[in-house]
Amino acid sequence: MKTGNEEKYLKFYNSQRNKIEEKLLTSLKGKKPESLYEPGKYILSGGGKRIRPVMLLFSALAAGGKASRAYNAAVAIELLHNFTLVHDDIMDNADKRRGRLTLHRKYDVNTAIIVGDGLLAVAYEFLLKDCRDNTKVILQNFNKGLREVCEGQSMDNDFERIDDVTLNEYFKMIKKKTAALFEVCCSIGSVLGGASSEHVKRFAKYGMNIGIAFQIQDDLLDITAEESKFGKIIGGDLVEGKKTFLLLSALFKAKGAYKKDLMEVIKDKGAAKNKIAHIKNIYEELGVISDAENQIKKYSNLAMKSLGFLKTTDHHYYDMFYWLTNFLIKRNI
Amino acid sequence: MKTGNEEKYLKFYNSQRNKIEEKLLTSLKGKKPESLYEPGKYILSGGGKRIRPVMLLFSALAAGGKASRAYNAAVAIELLHNFTLVHDDIMDNADKRRGRLTLHRKYDVNTAIIVGDGLLAVAYEFLLKDCRDNTKVILQNFNKGLREVCEGQSMDNDFERIDDVTLNEYFKMIKKKTAALFEVCCSIGSVLGGASSEHVKRFAKYGMNIGIAFQIQDDLLDITAEESKFGKIIGGDLVEGKKTFLLLSALFKAKGAYKKDLMEVIKDKGAAKNKIAHIKNIYEELGVISDAENQIKKYSNLAMKSLGFLKTTDHHYYDMFYWLTNFLIKRNI
Repeated sequence: MKTGNEEKYLKFYNSQRNKIEEKLLTSLKGKKPESLYEPGKYILSGGGKRIRPVMLLFSALAAGGKASRAYNAAVAIELLHNFTLVHDDIMDNADKRRGRLTLHRKYDVNTAIIVGDGLLAVAYEFLLKDCRDNTKVILQNFNKGLREVCEGQSMDNDFERIDDVTLNEYFKMIKKKTAALFEVCCSIGSVLGGASSEHVKRFAKYGMNIGIAFQIQDDLLDITAEESKFGKIIGGDLVEGKKTFLLLSALFKAKGAYKKDLMEVIKDKGAAKNKIAHIKNIYEELGVISDAENQIKKYSNLAMKSLGFLKTTDHHYYDMFYWLTNFLIKRNI
Repeated sequence: MKTGNEEKYLKFYNSQRNKIEEKLLTSLKGKKPESLYEPGKYILSGGGKRIRPVMLLFSALAAGGKASRAYNAAVAIELLHNFTLVHDDIMDNADKRRGRLTLHRKYDVNTAIIVGDGLLAVAYEFLLKDCRDNTKVILQNFNKGLREVCEGQSMDNDFERIDDVTLNEYFKMIKKKTAALFEVCCSIGSVLGGASSEHVKRFAKYGMNIGIAFQIQDDLLDITAEESKFGKIIGGDLVEGKKTFLLLSALFKAKGAYKKDLMEVIKDKGAAKNKIAHIKNIYEELGVISDAENQIKKYSNLAMKSLGFLKTTDHHYYDMFYWLTNFLIKRNI
């Protein structure tokens, strides 16, 4: 990539993020009852990178379309994402999200259930605004994404009760819980941009693979991020006993005392806070941190490979996705 | 209506209900993970009158269409309805539904949240199967219905905290929480049946008004139904302090000792079980039972009025809706 392009793409990303942010924050404006939409505004005003809607816009642009015809769909994706966050936070019994109280902690569980539902309803309404002759295929993609996110969340709930989750099952789960939504962003964006069905598949594949890389990165950040930037506690996944890529890989590789310590995390449904440094050390000794980094590289390379055709159609957009891919896997929050 | 027709329509209703039942029970077949879809099957196998999907089919037929082109949409409506039931039961802290344990009691709250979400995802997938060139308008109706149900549920939650709910507010709430879904059945059914947009509005109006009548009837049954047939405890709304048509009307009319007793129900957020007979007596003395009956008559007459045009296009379908209306408001469960 040419020097200076990184800054250009970051600037463009931020400009698109700002437009989405603005549209998102007004998406519930004037709607009633307040008991439904004020908590909705609270969760939407929590910030975030807005990666998914930007990815939808990038896909629309790279497919030859206009961003202006995809902003409502971009907002829909972010609303869908926030719906999942609100309900997931209840199920995970999470206190904080992006450094602020989760919705069910700020209000109550009943409010968080119905507000999540309401966000989903508004998501569908926004999505439909950008649909033209392609309504059916766009809705099919969105519905499939919603269903898979629910299936993935349910598998993740199951993992809490299963002691011997395999890495294979882990990949199945994150494909549904995390990657399916990235896939939807890319497929809907490219459909809106007018891509051929062959190219829509390529964009979708990019989304699926970058989504897998993104989730492994997320697992990794839990243990390697700086707490001040992260917005949540380091090692939180360990404390909760989450079956992450790191924990499952480490369990697979470990022997002797390491195996015993890791099995304790599983049996106790989580690690004590004062054990986190020790477990991190085990991870390093077993090489699962670099395993995670390799997986992230592998899946982001696979992602870029499926967009190879952009090199011949429009190299600028290939570079833009190349930048986006690096931006996502090198993030520290 | 001619003699013998009642039986004919009931038979037809049951035949359509059976077809929906069959399709509904297989709607989650083979889907995974089991942790998501087995509880889903549990809630769908709980029976019920399947009024909403049958109303959708009747609307499709009366509009000149075929039922065979609307079964998936009918199933979608029932799935959407069950999604609302599962989440409502959590919020209402309800133990029983149709004589069986509610989903969050049989499993747990987390399961009930994600299963509700999953049912909604599958609902959208079924709906889309019956969409052709009319996808956008059908989705608009369905989305609006979903949003209004959420808004209505949120208002109903608000009512728990408000001591001086007015009858006006009550009507606003039930229009969203209950009647909006009936409206959606009739509008989507008639669109699928090929009705003109003018006639779609008439069907929608039928749905809205019959939905209002249905909810007031539901409030009335809480106090007048036979417990063995009802599947839940008589006076349950009173025990929970629900702001029903009866309680709000009685509060508006009552003076002196009656007023004091009713205000106690409000202040205590519910009546003791041994007070139910006394409150029922107050209702009778104040005439709010017959007020409710009059409202049911009023709204069902309004409903039928908007379908008056069927008398000239196809009197058979007018009679069928006339029968359906009576069937709904004379039900004892």
